[in-house]
Amino acid sequence: MARWQEGAAGRLQGAALRLYAERGYEQTTVAEIASEVGLTARTFFRYFADKREVLFAGSAQLRDGMAAAVAGAPATAGPMAAVSAGLEASLAFLGGDHAHSSARHSVITANAELRERELIKMASLAEAMAEALCRRGVPAADASLAAEAGTVVFRVAFEQWVTGPPDASLPDLMHATLARLTEVTAPR
Amino acid sequence: MARWQEGAAGRLQGAALRLYAERGYEQTTVAEIASEVGLTARTFFRYFADKREVLFAGSAQLRDGMAAAVAGAPATAGPMAAVSAGLEASLAFLGGDHAHSSARHSVITANAELRERELIKMASLAEAMAEALCRRGVPAADASLAAEAGTVVFRVAFEQWVTGPPDASLPDLMHATLARLTEVTAPR
Repeated sequence: MARWQEGAAGRLQGAALRLYAERGYEQTTVAEIASEVGLTARTFFRYFADKREVLFAGSAQLRDGMAAAVAGAPATAGPMAAVSAGLEASLAFLGGDHAHSSARHSVITANAELRERELIKMASLAEAMAEALCRRGVPAADASLAAEAGTVVFRVAFEQWVTGPPDASLPDLMHATLARLTEVTAPR
Repeated sequence: MARWQEGAAGRLQGAALRLYAERGYEQTTVAEIASEVGLTARTFFRYFADKREVLFAGSAQLRDGMAAAVAGAPATAGPMAAVSAGLEASLAFLGGDHAHSSARHSVITANAELRERELIKMASLAEAMAEALCRRGVPAADASLAAEAGTVVFRVAFEQWVTGPPDASLPDLMHATLARLTEVTAPR
């Protein structure tokens, strides 16, 4: 989910994703990933803790970027407007490479351990945004509701993007999904 | 989170929770849990896969009960009204024993592995309700949004209940949190 990186880390990420897609995640070793791009396992471990984390590089930056945007929203913004600013900020981290994001999504959905790691990542995004809302003076329950609802929008829009045509606009999907959430949760 | 069970399974659950709270989850063995109630580890494993699953007994019933309620909501109910029926149904599984639920919550929040398992449980509730909505003809994205938003309400209300005074009403908290979600996500 990290923006494509130049250099060794980026090449290792690309090779890992390619091998996971071709051979399966379980069947691929760190040594194979490294040798695919002319590097050693030792070099791999300079950049990534293990073969799972190569798929989650950049998660901390994404989380911190979203939380910073929530914190930096205008003082007049309500909780959901501040969370929208967080979603807006996520686009800088995510929207770049449809083929990469789409391949990553396929690898993750095919493996229970990776789906769990992705859930944990989503929970950490929600938690970071909820904490940022609390520091803005939003009561804890409202902060959780807004941050988690925002994370649901993030996840649903992102999934539509990666499983859809490459020319679809992630910002448009994010805005449409946010509007749809309001629609779906409206009293009737 | 299971309703208090009579017999060996219930006694094992009670003993596990007591020992996890007193000594810590990591420090407690299955043999200790079993011997606490005069049983053997062998008997423990007849009821529970491991010392983690003793805390998650009843999750499948909760999930299936919520999904069945979504499926059984009146044909005229929109996605969120059907999900509300699911939340309503959860109360039969959860609202019984504040001291038990509260102790379980403390044990889970203190341990990263258990928090992850709880996240997976929440995701499975959302998934089951989303599938039930899809079978009602709700488009996939709306189904995900409504089911996941409902699961957020469930989690936030349940957390308020278990961390609050024992005489608070879980149904009231659930209804108030659902109304609050609508309020928080309303455009402004």
